Amino acid sequence: MPPRSDSREQMIKAGRRLYSARGYVGTAFSDVLAESGAPRGSVYFHFPGGKDEFAGEVIAAHSRSEEARLTRLAATCETPRELVIAFLTAARDYAVSTGFREGCPIGAVILESSHASPTLLESAAAAIETSIGSFTALLVERGATESDARRWATAAITGFEGALIVSRAMADPAPFDSLIDLLQLTMDRDRADMA
Amino acid sequence: MPPRSDSREQMIKAGRRLYSARGYVGTAFSDVLAESGAPRGSVYFHFPGGKDEFAGEVIAAHSRSEEARLTRLAATCETPRELVIAFLTAARDYAVSTGFREGCPIGAVILESSHASPTLLESAAAAIETSIGSFTALLVERGATESDARRWATAAITGFEGALIVSRAMADPAPFDSLIDLLQLTMDRDRADMA
Repeated sequence: MPPRSDSREQMIKAGRRLYSARGYVGTAFSDVLAESGAPRGSVYFHFPGGKDEFAGEVIAAHSRSEEARLTRLAATCETPRELVIAFLTAARDYAVSTGFREGCPIGAVILESSHASPTLLESAAAAIETSIGSFTALLVERGATESDARRWATAAITGFEGALIVSRAMADPAPFDSLIDLLQLTMDRDRADMA
Repeated sequence: MPPRSDSREQMIKAGRRLYSARGYVGTAFSDVLAESGAPRGSVYFHFPGGKDEFAGEVIAAHSRSEEARLTRLAATCETPRELVIAFLTAARDYAVSTGFREGCPIGAVILESSHASPTLLESAAAAIETSIGSFTALLVERGATESDARRWATAAITGFEGALIVSRAMADPAPFDSLIDLLQLTMDRDRADMA
């Protein structure tokens, strides 16, 4: 029986969840098949380049999905402050809803980078740069200066990655909340300049 | 030849560097032996409980070392703001000096937690809680309220863990700098209250 037409997509979605929960080195194709329900033949049919190619696709898919999600979120936000708070609040709620198991598959790939090919590392780095760049552009659209926007976007993404780890350790969203409190204080709606 | 008397300590130091650079799942005892120069017999002589026991010792040693380092740093800081900035600046400089390869061995253990025993996870969680608790106490000593101190300490440690990941991806300390800028703004020396 040939692989189901959506096997590729299901495997990539499973990869995103598994890398977030188990890391990159610790996720085998057998885990991906079990999580996605894809037939065994799917692995080499869709990813002849093996684990490295698969991981690159997982990162790219996550990056595209997150960009779309951030754009949708931004449509409901008028100010830079609203967007940064909305981003971290949504991330917080998602982490809580998944028992702090899911959130971002890229952190593990980066932490385990000595086990990844240079190409895969470049993909991970590019995904991070893209997310910061998109976030920055959305903040500029909402009135922030280029340098403020870059700083808030970098801090938000950096805080997000850290909060995924620390909230999992604590089994508590306090890491997200501390960042949200901090940013609400700094990005005071009454302050004309944030420099 | 019996294991050198400092083999245990050398292996644990090597474990701290390797977990930071390569992750927990991706660090084998052969890596630890190569990195530390300890003789092969050292592994089971010092860590009869195997990889899990070794990881627990790495986390405990890191936790003790970091607590001592933070206490020494705090001795040079009079205000909460100074301590938070000093902590992140030192972390930034260390990350840069190691080519963004080292900083904290605990993040990887937490990210790869489904591969760790419950005991090891508890050790990782305890280490995180201890570091936030110590940091909080040092901030209170320097005049912060309990709730402000807890919030700054949680944000600083959370940001630190995220900055290790994002700075490695970008091969740039901007993630640390964005957090330092943010905290310098929020913890304004002229503000009597930080709430």
